[in-house]
Amino acid sequence: MTAIQGFELRAGTTTLAPVRKECPVLSPEDVLIRVAGCGVCHTDLGFIHDGVRTRHPLPLILGHEISGHVEDAGSRHRNLVGKAVVVPAVLPCGECALCRGGHPTICAAQIMPGNDRDGGFATHVVLPGTFLCVVPGAGSDPDAPLGSAAGLTLRHLAVVADAVSTAYQAVERAGLARGSLAVVVGLGGVGTFAAQVAAERGAVVVGLDVDPRRRAEAAKMGVGLALDPREVSGKELRSRVAAFAHGAGAPATGWTILECSGTPAGQQTAFGLLVHGATLMVVGFTLETVAVRLSNLMAFDARALGNWGCAPELYSAILERVLAGKIDIVSHAALKPLSSITEALEQVRAHRADRRIVLVPGREEVP
Amino acid sequence: MTAIQGFELRAGTTTLAPVRKECPVLSPEDVLIRVAGCGVCHTDLGFIHDGVRTRHPLPLILGHEISGHVEDAGSRHRNLVGKAVVVPAVLPCGECALCRGGHPTICAAQIMPGNDRDGGFATHVVLPGTFLCVVPGAGSDPDAPLGSAAGLTLRHLAVVADAVSTAYQAVERAGLARGSLAVVVGLGGVGTFAAQVAAERGAVVVGLDVDPRRRAEAAKMGVGLALDPREVSGKELRSRVAAFAHGAGAPATGWTILECSGTPAGQQTAFGLLVHGATLMVVGFTLETVAVRLSNLMAFDARALGNWGCAPELYSAILERVLAGKIDIVSHAALKPLSSITEALEQVRAHRADRRIVLVPGREEVP
Repeated sequence: MTAIQGFELRAGTTTLAPVRKECPVLSPEDVLIRVAGCGVCHTDLGFIHDGVRTRHPLPLILGHEISGHVEDAGSRHRNLVGKAVVVPAVLPCGECALCRGGHPTICAAQIMPGNDRDGGFATHVVLPGTFLCVVPGAGSDPDAPLGSAAGLTLRHLAVVADAVSTAYQAVERAGLARGSLAVVVGLGGVGTFAAQVAAERGAVVVGLDVDPRRRAEAAKMGVGLALDPREVSGKELRSRVAAFAHGAGAPATGWTILECSGTPAGQQTAFGLLVHGATLMVVGFTLETVAVRLSNLMAFDARALGNWGCAPELYSAILERVLAGKIDIVSHAALKPLSSITEALEQVRAHRADRRIVLVPGREEVP
Repeated sequence: MTAIQGFELRAGTTTLAPVRKECPVLSPEDVLIRVAGCGVCHTDLGFIHDGVRTRHPLPLILGHEISGHVEDAGSRHRNLVGKAVVVPAVLPCGECALCRGGHPTICAAQIMPGNDRDGGFATHVVLPGTFLCVVPGAGSDPDAPLGSAAGLTLRHLAVVADAVSTAYQAVERAGLARGSLAVVVGLGGVGTFAAQVAAERGAVVVGLDVDPRRRAEAAKMGVGLALDPREVSGKELRSRVAAFAHGAGAPATGWTILECSGTPAGQQTAFGLLVHGATLMVVGFTLETVAVRLSNLMAFDARALGNWGCAPELYSAILERVLAGKIDIVSHAALKPLSSITEALEQVRAHRADRRIVLVPGREEVP
């Protein structure tokens, strides 16, 4: 029997505790994945510090941004054994009305690792096999180079499970057109990838971020104009963006605005950039309200679309782009030992992590 | 030469003044329409009282909700002569990026009668012929019965030009599914028709209105549950609506909320009804801002779509439903002589008109 070693959240605590469990007997639908990497997300901090409740009662091993190798499988998924996979952060049922109606990520019967079941801050994880995304061309070594992107390994692909894929679905759902203007508000964990995905689709990209380091990096993400929304705001921001769009040959209408900051200020800025026929993608989350002139959606024949995660069916297209080096993950991810999880969570919480942290299990991390 | 007699807005005044003009020589694209009826809309009051500027400089004959007969036509539209038509409130160019991208009503080259050119508060109006919607089965008498709806005439069809068609496009754009739940916020000029269109599509319909008279009429519009949002609000409203949906066999997700009140309170109520996979249609307009938790769009994988007017291509499907008596206009329209325009505008302004007023030109109304 495989032993699963990981870090679990226990009721009434704010530090994850090491735990060792025996792997359960696999059901026909489930597979056992040896974790190659698991990204740290603000959602995890919500569970630990902000009182957001996991759907499965505590204790629970957290972590939902997982890549790894299928080590064993129930009868329905024997074909997956030995395969390298990325685990979509939400594994839907695929059969209900929401799944069939284009909303698989809010499927009521979904399995989200680290929420509905033990997650990926562990050596292994047991999950349904149906929607796993097989990584083409990957061997059995999680540290072997992958695709044509320098330095890319299976461990980095953990970031595809949530951060990259959420950004990708947001751009896809917006129907971003080649040559049109995309404005990414917040060039952090998700925004970084939203900018890259938008640029890869041939959009003219503007990036807004209050952090000068991120603005300095923006050009590498395909951002043609990076501005500080605290310095340039309101009508002046609109004019600057419009002038840039004009200069780059992008239309003055039909802008796509990707709100990835998850802050009230960012949402206000994003809403203020609506033009005729615009699409505002609400990708970031904040519990706070914002005062907006909702009627502008009507006056501009515009729309605001929420985006929660990513449908499993999009993952192979995303992987293809990552493996081809069209979306850069390596510069935006930092691999750290799983044993450093407490420090890593604190770094993310304090906004001191300038890259997405991917926790990598070793032999030694769980005492 | 035909003389056009109508009522125009002059700079610095708030009463429309009678005017008589010679009909211009028709360009190849234009047609001359003898007006059968022209509906009074709050947009007209915006021009007269609220400082909203018409795109064509004043003086200008107002009115954009027009039905009538084509009396003469330029060379491209000779086939229209003698035909009864409904004039879409927005006549787009049909060729620009916005037109081709599904946004014809915000086409920059659009002609809106009573805004870009003299409108329908007149005996005649000259407009481009391309997107006029021919009324099937109509003869030359504007007072003759039409279709299978009792009392319906070409004059009533003026209301299709804006109020009915705006509601129709909103429902169409939402992709309202048979058996799903629609909530109409505000059962006034547009909401009345939104409820009927939703019911005709097989939705389970809830109507919210502060006016008891409208709630009393709601059942006739296909509304199964009518509530006063001042009496039932917040979580209680949500529960009541959910219980009604459940009882009627409609899903608890994917609701369509049609905000037709154009008030901050209505918008707040509408936003508060978002559920997983919901669609909020922003149909009414107010200049005021509202405080909303925009992130709910993300958390619910929901969307808010603005709707401005209606694409010309939808008008024939709308007319078909109206002529078949599936959408009742007659009970919701009041025909009045064009000569009573000043009184009619005041009635609408004071919210004393419980039906859509359609002004009907006679021989005597312009001195």
